[in-house]
Amino acid sequence: MSGAPALAIEAVLGSLRFDAQGLVAAIAQQHDTNEVLMLAWMNRDAVEETLRTGEVCYWSRSRAKLWRKGETSGQVQRLVEFRFDCDGDAVLLRVDQTGVACHTGRRTCFYRALRDGRLVSIVDITVDPDALYRL
Amino acid sequence: MSGAPALAIEAVLGSLRFDAQGLVAAIAQQHDTNEVLMLAWMNRDAVEETLRTGEVCYWSRSRAKLWRKGETSGQVQRLVEFRFDCDGDAVLLRVDQTGVACHTGRRTCFYRALRDGRLVSIVDITVDPDALYRL
Repeated sequence: MSGAPALAIEAVLGSLRFDAQGLVAAIAQQHDTNEVLMLAWMNRDAVEETLRTGEVCYWSRSRAKLWRKGETSGQVQRLVEFRFDCDGDAVLLRVDQTGVACHTGRRTCFYRALRDGRLVSIVDITVDPDALYRL
Repeated sequence: MSGAPALAIEAVLGSLRFDAQGLVAAIAQQHDTNEVLMLAWMNRDAVEETLRTGEVCYWSRSRAKLWRKGETSGQVQRLVEFRFDCDGDAVLLRVDQTGVACHTGRRTCFYRALRDGRLVSIVDITVDPDALYRL
């Protein structure tokens, strides 16, 4: 999705219910495979920036700043469709993920699973995390 | 998934990072279609109850009590697999949803989307919500 018109952005912002910290939860889902990639947070500015540019931008709670996904790692998320839920406090970002979503170098952040009574890693590292962040 | 052993439940609880309110975000995803159904919250008791019984249980923030999904509506979620993310503060519940996940009578709560610059509903109501809650 390329940039949405200002009126549409206002309509979305008016429909979302930001919490006491001014945030909504945002799920990123790969648009063609339906794989859930990650969960992060958005404030009003992050929603606006995402819709305006068509590139996903979150609010980093740990760094207390806007965080354009991939700004350091290059692993950007192109917005395909913006959806939100019945309560307006959760967003579903249908995206096209470049490379990997997880800072560990895995496609998805949800790589830990309980299987046969044991915690296991179910997703391989496909990109060296040191290379992602040029450490 | 039927009930997990106590040791496995302890391992999961020890790996999750509950926030200041004692909660983690939980995404429910239909296991065979990969459709994202809803986002809700779990505390330690909800995680334990879900893993022990194999039926998804959340923490209702509005009612401040455990909420077995479907306890009123019959629209239960059977747990297929429990996953969580790199930070341990978000859970991905792979479930088998009976009927509809949304209290509006739609399969998924994420039925509002921005398309062609307009907010539209992209999921039909398939169950009368009055029938769901016997109003």
